[in-house]
Amino acid sequence: MTTAGADPLRIGHELNGAVVTVDPALPDRVREGVEQIVGRPVGTGRGPRVHIGPHFPELAEGERLLWVHSTNAGVDALLKARTPWPREVLLTRTVGRMGERIGQYVLAWVLAELQNVPAFLEQHARRTWHGLPTELADGAVAVVLGAGRIGTAIGTALQQCGVHTVGVARSPREMPGFDSVVPLGVPEKPGGGPSRELADVLAKARWVVNALPLTPQTSGLVGAGLLGALRGATFLNVGRGETVLTDALARALDEGTVGHAVLDVLPEEPAAPADPAWDLPRTTLTCHSAGPTTHEDVTADFRAAWQALRAGELPTLTVRVSAGY
Amino acid sequence: MTTAGADPLRIGHELNGAVVTVDPALPDRVREGVEQIVGRPVGTGRGPRVHIGPHFPELAEGERLLWVHSTNAGVDALLKARTPWPREVLLTRTVGRMGERIGQYVLAWVLAELQNVPAFLEQHARRTWHGLPTELADGAVAVVLGAGRIGTAIGTALQQCGVHTVGVARSPREMPGFDSVVPLGVPEKPGGGPSRELADVLAKARWVVNALPLTPQTSGLVGAGLLGALRGATFLNVGRGETVLTDALARALDEGTVGHAVLDVLPEEPAAPADPAWDLPRTTLTCHSAGPTTHEDVTADFRAAWQALRAGELPTLTVRVSAGY
Repeated sequence: MTTAGADPLRIGHELNGAVVTVDPALPDRVREGVEQIVGRPVGTGRGPRVHIGPHFPELAEGERLLWVHSTNAGVDALLKARTPWPREVLLTRTVGRMGERIGQYVLAWVLAELQNVPAFLEQHARRTWHGLPTELADGAVAVVLGAGRIGTAIGTALQQCGVHTVGVARSPREMPGFDSVVPLGVPEKPGGGPSRELADVLAKARWVVNALPLTPQTSGLVGAGLLGALRGATFLNVGRGETVLTDALARALDEGTVGHAVLDVLPEEPAAPADPAWDLPRTTLTCHSAGPTTHEDVTADFRAAWQALRAGELPTLTVRVSAGY
Repeated sequence: MTTAGADPLRIGHELNGAVVTVDPALPDRVREGVEQIVGRPVGTGRGPRVHIGPHFPELAEGERLLWVHSTNAGVDALLKARTPWPREVLLTRTVGRMGERIGQYVLAWVLAELQNVPAFLEQHARRTWHGLPTELADGAVAVVLGAGRIGTAIGTALQQCGVHTVGVARSPREMPGFDSVVPLGVPEKPGGGPSRELADVLAKARWVVNALPLTPQTSGLVGAGLLGALRGATFLNVGRGETVLTDALARALDEGTVGHAVLDVLPEEPAAPADPAWDLPRTTLTCHSAGPTTHEDVTADFRAAWQALRAGELPTLTVRVSAGY
């Protein structure tokens, strides 16, 4: 389940002599932070290579790569650009406070809906004093697809405000932030129907939040089958654009099984002015702004991984390459 | 401190024979709920009078009034229409879930600001894909004026999302929902300056939420002095419109001591299209929608008060007429 062949004990021993490099596009303070953590200037030494950055590094002739620390949480692009992943190379990722950030993003849009924020803004522009309904969350159901670090943080944020939360995971078990967890049950073909159990839950949802990572199994997973099981829920996508079939979402919005949509991610970003996503009815695009990774996040997560390896342990943010996250 | 002269033991004894009346403008299910609680049809009997409604009841010649249960949380209009309040008459009010409701309203607008919700809605209308900053609440300071049932519920909602909350109360003490509580220190004249301690807190605030009731002491309290102590905070008014001097708010917005405003209440409601409040810069009016009182709230709070009196106790929602709430 871990990065195949990446033995933390072996890597921990080799860190002492490793040449640590930082992607040159990253700002000076990331490089300075890394130098403080590893105790020497980046790029110095003669041992194997440790690289921090968003991409797979270019290696010199005969150079051996030990470990890549991704500066992003989603590693789909990195894994796609380097397939198959060299089994002896450790891959870790940066999550930082992304879970909290995305949790608060989702909560903001959920409460904006309950409190009619967009309608009040419009009404104000027309100088119209007219009371509008405002609702307590109070037990309304949110279904969160993906119950990893991001998904559980979303569940936690919603649960604190009285939302009833249901997580959807590949391997359901009791998880923080969720009142219950049901199995994802990947359908046989993209866009295929959900299991009966999942369909029952989706039918009760007021909000469905997609926080799935992009893997071969999740690509196009949110299609006609899943979206057709909704009964007017608001669909929020904070995961990856390619996990959702945009045509199916457009039809679900037309047919009303999806009531509203808030999309932070799209299959093609940035969306050009002519992109049909702008024309989706009752939809707001938020331009991949929900879960920024800060430079502090990159160095904090690299520091934790470095310290774990020095102690002979596998870092918590190790990517399971076979799973894709 | 209680309704002067209203003795719960005496009133409790007299409830058996009391004639209970419900304002005829209230829907049938309030009347039905009341009849179930008191165990007889409304309007029947020959004893003293108990009235449920938004106004002071008209009394028949020689009729004696025992108790008024207000269907609203704010009793300023009721007290103003019947001054001085007859000291032997008990006054209780309906709060219901208003605290939770207003707490979630405030949280929604606070998170909408942190997540740039209005800017994303505008940007979407222009088909512009452009990432905007989104921020975690993460220790930013909210100051809540008024630390009663509504104020503490606002503090609780904000605190759960990582906001640092400071309550402002006439009699500061440790209160749920607040990291600290400072004294209100009513200034000598309307719009006068706040105490040094309060001014220091206001200068650190990112949000200032007004949840003060309307009393002779709070009328016009939020004026040039208090608003001038802010350093760009967003001002939210969920209390009473007359506690804020609109001219002073307009100047504070012009001068930038108030960065944005979200006003659920105004001194004159409804605001006509020509009302200058629509022209306040960086302001949204939400038309007295934050804390609706439901019919269930009215009967639930009346039931609790009825049961308390039957047990010889003063109801929790008894109005202290001298304080005005």
